[in-house]
Amino acid sequence: MNKYWSETIKGIAPYVPGEQPRAGRLVKLNTNENPYPPSPEVLNAMKAAVTDKLRLYPDPNCSRLRETASRHYGIPAEQIFAGNGSDEILAFCFKAFFDPGDMILFPDITYNFYEVYAKLFGVSYRTVPLTESFDVPVEGFFTYNDGVILANPNAPTGKAIPLENIEALVKRNRQAVVIVDEAYIDFGGESSIGLIPKYDNLLVIRTFSKSRSLAGLRIGLAMGHSSLIEALIRVRDCINCFTVDWIAQAGAIASLEDTETFTRNIQSVIATRSRITSLLRQAGFQVVDSSTNFLLISHPKVEAGTLNDALRRQNIFVRLFPRPRIDNYLRVTIGTDEEMDILFEALLNLVHGTQLKISRIEPNSDPSLNK
Amino acid sequence: MNKYWSETIKGIAPYVPGEQPRAGRLVKLNTNENPYPPSPEVLNAMKAAVTDKLRLYPDPNCSRLRETASRHYGIPAEQIFAGNGSDEILAFCFKAFFDPGDMILFPDITYNFYEVYAKLFGVSYRTVPLTESFDVPVEGFFTYNDGVILANPNAPTGKAIPLENIEALVKRNRQAVVIVDEAYIDFGGESSIGLIPKYDNLLVIRTFSKSRSLAGLRIGLAMGHSSLIEALIRVRDCINCFTVDWIAQAGAIASLEDTETFTRNIQSVIATRSRITSLLRQAGFQVVDSSTNFLLISHPKVEAGTLNDALRRQNIFVRLFPRPRIDNYLRVTIGTDEEMDILFEALLNLVHGTQLKISRIEPNSDPSLNK
Repeated sequence: MNKYWSETIKGIAPYVPGEQPRAGRLVKLNTNENPYPPSPEVLNAMKAAVTDKLRLYPDPNCSRLRETASRHYGIPAEQIFAGNGSDEILAFCFKAFFDPGDMILFPDITYNFYEVYAKLFGVSYRTVPLTESFDVPVEGFFTYNDGVILANPNAPTGKAIPLENIEALVKRNRQAVVIVDEAYIDFGGESSIGLIPKYDNLLVIRTFSKSRSLAGLRIGLAMGHSSLIEALIRVRDCINCFTVDWIAQAGAIASLEDTETFTRNIQSVIATRSRITSLLRQAGFQVVDSSTNFLLISHPKVEAGTLNDALRRQNIFVRLFPRPRIDNYLRVTIGTDEEMDILFEALLNLVHGTQLKISRIEPNSDPSLNK
Repeated sequence: MNKYWSETIKGIAPYVPGEQPRAGRLVKLNTNENPYPPSPEVLNAMKAAVTDKLRLYPDPNCSRLRETASRHYGIPAEQIFAGNGSDEILAFCFKAFFDPGDMILFPDITYNFYEVYAKLFGVSYRTVPLTESFDVPVEGFFTYNDGVILANPNAPTGKAIPLENIEALVKRNRQAVVIVDEAYIDFGGESSIGLIPKYDNLLVIRTFSKSRSLAGLRIGLAMGHSSLIEALIRVRDCINCFTVDWIAQAGAIASLEDTETFTRNIQSVIATRSRITSLLRQAGFQVVDSSTNFLLISHPKVEAGTLNDALRRQNIFVRLFPRPRIDNYLRVTIGTDEEMDILFEALLNLVHGTQLKISRIEPNSDPSLNK
């Protein structure tokens, strides 16, 4: 705290991202990164973009990227916005669509950043409680509001929202923008992109950090009616006209073009998720149904905090959320089969209170899935 | 305009950056890019950073970059902040140090983005008129304020502010943060970095886009008391924790380490600036003394708008600012000697109203300066 800080900054608790430990050998299952590397074609495209051209400002509108995304997602390029990660785009949304004093809605358990944005930009909010089973109750969003934000699938629960519920919600809220943050949609659930031509109040957000293995490159997209995109462009041009550098634009284009690697990696994550979900349930863990690349798990006898501390001592990083209703859960990213075996073995030892070695888990039978 | 836009966005005129034409052969002297490419070592470092590691989030704190900058600038790493270009950092400053309703000061002629930030974040401002000779009148900033922003050297005038004036201003405004935007300082003028240990209300901003030939990579730094840096970190962590990607961090580190290329490029730009300034003055142009990589010029007989239109038809891009006091000036980036010769010849033809060919200008005598 310091006398030069603004009142906003004095009062706010910033978002706390999962740790990025610099240590050597560890099992990092705490920030929902993809365990598989980006496609070699993405890396080649990025290397090819490292040229003397870097002396020039990048294309502020990411035209080639948006044209490629247009072909990939089947919507016009003018309905697409590219930014320096989806978090930046979400922050821009708060300036683009909400005014101080506006009242927006989001679930009580969701991506914690929505609350941080609201506080930073002086936007009021009310949270809608998830059901007992961690589902988003669509009718909870049928009250008056100046905007709605949903993560679909939701995080950190991992649960998908049925498309008909999203549509009902968008339809009932024509007075306001409904933002659907599809950070994890490639791992499960149904995208709302198909609803964009029908509803000019729907904005869909995507990231390249999870399913596209490019967290280190910082690329996000927003898709919606061109007037919503125009508002985002206005906000960007009031902050930083050139948010996406040349190399990130090149990498993102190549990523959209390499469907094969993308599909293979997604399938591997889903196969591993299915396998580890069964194993954990057999071992007595409660596992929330996941449509994402992470699991929310708890154990009836051993507290999440105890498990977290013990895992950490073994250099296994998972994530704990000190928030009501989920503070006794661990959020565990789906890593490689090998990483999940290490985690599972460690958890078994901890909940059995013994150091008994269990027989190693069978990996996926198809070795190509483990790439 | 659209019913879903926030009131802020409806009312604001975003910053308009200089055009980034996609055409082929042109003389691009409109956005103050460096005519010389980044050092090969910078490009190599970036290529080496294109690895599987991109699946992981980048180091949010840019630790290695800040350690390198610490050695380079001689101030502790905890007094350094890295961002996705200096514009992003300047925007963060408005949330970090100013509240809606606060009243800040900046010159009437300066980087137009300061006014845009103020409007976006609801911060009031008063402009202090430059003198007739486009100098910053330091005593104009001795009235009460909640913050000051200065570009030193100023843009688009190109004039440097003497260090003693900056110090007087920082000293007289201990109630508020004084932000000194040193985007162009490597081309001339005296940096305020040396004042940082003495004044905890001074924040110095740097960019890699101009002197370091990396506009396409998006890197900026802020330097100041660690509590000011902490405020910027808080704002960043309320917007986007990972603003600088792995490759940009690698390129920026290599840039700071290659002093030789940096110095040679700077010297080339300064030599060309000196030569073209003399030539333009001999040809009857008024040229503001420049400590930057651009010139602000006008002609007593031919209007700037006329010159701009005619140059554009010849695929020579310079910049016009439709603002009081400078609307009859052209801002011209210092390009290579060849580019400046093309510009000079075109200008001469225009002001003489003839198509007379002049003899080509002598390039710098030392050919190594033209790299």
